[in-house]
Amino acid sequence: MATRRALSRETSILIDDMLQGNARALARLITIVEEDDEESYQVLKHISPSFNAHRVGVTGPPGAGKSTLVNRLTTFARQNELRVGIICADPSSPFSGGAVLGDRVRMTQHYMDEGVHIRSMSTRGSLGGLPSTVHGIIKLMDASGKDLILVETVGVGQMELDVMENVDTVVVALVPEAGDDIQAMKAGLMEIADIFAVNKADRPGAESLVAGIRSMLDLVCQSNDWMIPVLATQAENNIGVGELYEQICHHRKTTIETGAFSERRARQRHDEFTAILQKMVTRQFMDTISADDRLAGFVSQMNKGEISPYAAAEEIFDTITRKLL
Amino acid sequence: MATRRALSRETSILIDDMLQGNARALARLITIVEEDDEESYQVLKHISPSFNAHRVGVTGPPGAGKSTLVNRLTTFARQNELRVGIICADPSSPFSGGAVLGDRVRMTQHYMDEGVHIRSMSTRGSLGGLPSTVHGIIKLMDASGKDLILVETVGVGQMELDVMENVDTVVVALVPEAGDDIQAMKAGLMEIADIFAVNKADRPGAESLVAGIRSMLDLVCQSNDWMIPVLATQAENNIGVGELYEQICHHRKTTIETGAFSERRARQRHDEFTAILQKMVTRQFMDTISADDRLAGFVSQMNKGEISPYAAAEEIFDTITRKLL
Repeated sequence: MATRRALSRETSILIDDMLQGNARALARLITIVEEDDEESYQVLKHISPSFNAHRVGVTGPPGAGKSTLVNRLTTFARQNELRVGIICADPSSPFSGGAVLGDRVRMTQHYMDEGVHIRSMSTRGSLGGLPSTVHGIIKLMDASGKDLILVETVGVGQMELDVMENVDTVVVALVPEAGDDIQAMKAGLMEIADIFAVNKADRPGAESLVAGIRSMLDLVCQSNDWMIPVLATQAENNIGVGELYEQICHHRKTTIETGAFSERRARQRHDEFTAILQKMVTRQFMDTISADDRLAGFVSQMNKGEISPYAAAEEIFDTITRKLL
Repeated sequence: MATRRALSRETSILIDDMLQGNARALARLITIVEEDDEESYQVLKHISPSFNAHRVGVTGPPGAGKSTLVNRLTTFARQNELRVGIICADPSSPFSGGAVLGDRVRMTQHYMDEGVHIRSMSTRGSLGGLPSTVHGIIKLMDASGKDLILVETVGVGQMELDVMENVDTVVVALVPEAGDDIQAMKAGLMEIADIFAVNKADRPGAESLVAGIRSMLDLVCQSNDWMIPVLATQAENNIGVGELYEQICHHRKTTIETGAFSERRARQRHDEFTAILQKMVTRQFMDTISADDRLAGFVSQMNKGEISPYAAAEEIFDTITRKLL
């Protein structure tokens, strides 16, 4: 099977360089992983299974100041001499191009810092889906020796929530204007937030949003091990970001102690395992199906509307399983 | 195999009622299809393969007035005595709740009309993915005797573009404020738009946006069979919507004549066929894998970090294929 071929010599050298902390090798390997092909599979398979970085996600609606928060958190981490990886995941490329450019400009102060690796990515071209590609890039940055990995989502939606499945700590950033929408947001956000940051807290309505989230958190059943903090921040003015940084570190420490950290990582490994297996299985079967002479006939009948896609699929499936089972 | 069990008697009656145009039966069948389970498979399989409705998608950024456009187009269609199905697909549930409620309120004028069936849906709980669920609902509405099906997306992003793969005619709605972003949007939108509607055209910048899109369309290679029209509309004031309605009808007529219509439908059937087959194959293999005693051992080793998800997946895959092939 194709996935068993050895790693190419060139990629093998790239991995060695990346493990030594070479930034260009890391960047090239990320590009390979984004392709989501055989080589990408080989790269991810050959990275050491021991990872050390703290993986932190920052999500929230557009305009919540997520990039500025990530920017400020990076400054704190650099003051503590941590090496930082930043992944800016943008699943909504067709309509939000402008916003992404703006974000990149805001992030420039760390672009020249060798201790910070910044990577923007969009869904386009990532066949395996954005969340699994992000997971691969997180692992690459981790293996390259980053201590803190910040994953920022740009758009809004289910895909962003899925991206957040791949981190250890999720910061949900909101702004006072979001107040009216809390009820609507409840379902998705309460499930994923480890920390709330009410950003742009100098604007009217910030206090009542903080209070509103706190009372909603009181209503849902919170774990005794971690009380979700609701912080007021002003990332632009660098107010409250130190406390946010401390709470992020505190969340890591607490979840490691309670075992929640390793439970989350185990769940991620299991999801990864299932995804790999499904991909292998689908490919194997599809290869067998493509080689079957009758496929063309069924497709032609289906295109003429003589049989339904359901009937065609069932016929093909029967033929193949009769051969295989 | 489970997918071969017969349709339940209850569902069979629902389908008969739905084919007679019963609205409650249609609503219940849509709920079944949203579940994306065995019963859903049976329902979609049993619907006649001959469909007649014109399927029209309306997409674009938030605030482009898509719901108002859909509302106005529905009024035109009703004046022509067409039965209308409206599907409001919202993949971005966690952050955009407020907008959806607003949209629903704006649509109320058609809620009491028996010739109009309105359905809102979100991604949550749709395991097969929003685009394939939308496709199922389109087919149900079509089978129930609708003449025009309007599919409106609420959020922004790749998933909305994927939803638009399931229609015959795609209207992309924009607003003058979007002007600066045209360059960024180009990639996704130019590929899918059959008609552009620059809505809220009384606002400043509308004319230059219309001109901008037209000159971009001149740059890309357009088909000789269909020149993509760029219309100025004011849905709120009911200006330009009649022309939009005519262009939508014109697009159907033209594409049927050139064969592009049936090509698009054939592509959709093929995608559906592949998706069904992949689902069958994955399920069959996953069932075999779950029944394998060694699975638990590998998972336990993986959870302890003793083997990587890649090694575990390869071992399991080898074991199963050795048994099957």
